[in-house]
Amino acid sequence: MVEFNPRSLDALFHALSDPTRRAMLQTLSTRSHKVGELAAPFDMSLAAASKHIKVLEQAGLVRREVRGRTHTCHLEALPLHAGLAWLRHYERFWRDRLDALEALLRSSDATAAATPDIPAPTRKETP
Amino acid sequence: MVEFNPRSLDALFHALSDPTRRAMLQTLSTRSHKVGELAAPFDMSLAAASKHIKVLEQAGLVRREVRGRTHTCHLEALPLHAGLAWLRHYERFWRDRLDALEALLRSSDATAAATPDIPAPTRKETP
Repeated sequence: MVEFNPRSLDALFHALSDPTRRAMLQTLSTRSHKVGELAAPFDMSLAAASKHIKVLEQAGLVRREVRGRTHTCHLEALPLHAGLAWLRHYERFWRDRLDALEALLRSSDATAAATPDIPAPTRKETP
Repeated sequence: MVEFNPRSLDALFHALSDPTRRAMLQTLSTRSHKVGELAAPFDMSLAAASKHIKVLEQAGLVRREVRGRTHTCHLEALPLHAGLAWLRHYERFWRDRLDALEALLRSSDATAAATPDIPAPTRKETP
């Protein structure tokens, strides 16, 4: 298996484990946002939103550009690449599982096709 | 973007944010293990290891099979698929970044090739 920096993966997956932080990344994938704009859609204080942004910065997913009093956040997607590479190692396991499920569905379809819905009339024996 | 169950993604990424839990998944990707075997390589109590296993179970990444007093853990890789699909949405962003880096390296290579290491001798002007 490819070796990754464990601390980077800890920070990355921790950053992604919260729906607010994932939504912030989604927002930043459209364009860069000022901190206030990024925090606005969430029902939380600016301080709470800032904490989420800091977690994203610590994971290297957000770069903050400071110009005077304006802080602009930019998406830095590169660390996500390590997460995807880590997950890919397990792809064969769910592929096997999905293939098995597909085979099961196909065999049940084949059985259903071989078994007519209306049973064939039984020949009436004459006594 | 594909919609995922946010709670499943929370549990999945939370489970992956710890190196012990990632190592446990790595171990289970070789074969199923009894709880004691799975806990053995880690410098922690069986109770602490069991907590990690519970987090993995809650994320649907581990299935525990109980036979009498023997608890066997099996890898369930399917939830990782949702994580990979989520990350893939951002692939184009790091691809763009990687392409830009590659272009930069190529242009610096080209500049290096055009600039010889040994400077051409300057023609000596005769007075």
